[in-house]
Amino acid sequence: MKEKTIKSENVFSGKLLHLYVDEVELENGHKAIREVIRHCEASAVLAIDDQERVLIEKQFRYPYGEDTLEIPAGKADPKEDPMETAKRELAEETGYAATSWLHLGDIYPSCAYTDEVIHIYLAQGLKPGTRHLDEGESLDYRFIKMTDLKTMVKDGLIKDGKTLAALAFYQAKLQ
Amino acid sequence: MKEKTIKSENVFSGKLLHLYVDEVELENGHKAIREVIRHCEASAVLAIDDQERVLIEKQFRYPYGEDTLEIPAGKADPKEDPMETAKRELAEETGYAATSWLHLGDIYPSCAYTDEVIHIYLAQGLKPGTRHLDEGESLDYRFIKMTDLKTMVKDGLIKDGKTLAALAFYQAKLQ
Repeated sequence: MKEKTIKSENVFSGKLLHLYVDEVELENGHKAIREVIRHCEASAVLAIDDQERVLIEKQFRYPYGEDTLEIPAGKADPKEDPMETAKRELAEETGYAATSWLHLGDIYPSCAYTDEVIHIYLAQGLKPGTRHLDEGESLDYRFIKMTDLKTMVKDGLIKDGKTLAALAFYQAKLQ
Repeated sequence: MKEKTIKSENVFSGKLLHLYVDEVELENGHKAIREVIRHCEASAVLAIDDQERVLIEKQFRYPYGEDTLEIPAGKADPKEDPMETAKRELAEETGYAATSWLHLGDIYPSCAYTDEVIHIYLAQGLKPGTRHLDEGESLDYRFIKMTDLKTMVKDGLIKDGKTLAALAFYQAKLQ
């Protein structure tokens, strides 16, 4: 470990976020403060149908005060396997199940100050069903052709980090 | 605004992070709590040399307790233009300047709970110089061929969200 934890103080614990202020000793012997969000794991799903269309959600994001376009995603339940989280969130948010699942990769969304890991999966062979949104969750979804989605990325319409990362994984692994 | 702020409490203000617990009213009249990190803006740089090699840093990230491979990036100084932040961080962390700059796009790294925006730029026409790391900052960098970097993405060696997003922007805009 290049930075040794000397002291760790849990300054906030909420429903979603747990904030710690840690004092660390660096390799050169100097001391520094690290403010860290401890967050549960999450999974996200790049769901592509038989016509090469990607399932994209439009969701209001309070921190930005605007709607964002994102792939389906959500937090893991305690001790839940990341692929199960992906399957559950896809079904809850859109109703879809999938016959084919592939792990695309894991991302560190904001590595300077959170320990969150988002596991990203490719889902194909989509089958519609009934969705079950969480209390207070409101979102729409639609299918966007992969070629159109890439144009939207080019035009700056896709800002969500995990969605852009999923596309980078997909292009590296499957194209 | 789809969620109306009823109450906002600043529960923590540190050197880097500012945490708020807000009470909001949803469109259906129900109330909900939103835990939000307010963070300054940041810029990141996809720096590519004349041999199609990408400048990649290896940096210890305390939240994960490990080294990550990332493009150069850093926080904006107060009122600093995002492109100036990009130029300053590239120079400070690697010593390089660039003759050509292009805005690739902006990302929302963790849109559920932070308002951080990372502005991503493409830098070409690289010229070496002397770097000036921040106090307590320790990082190495090297140039990696774009084709090798894509193999590393495929193999799961690149986990940093902004780096993957930068590659998605680059592929959508320039390839």
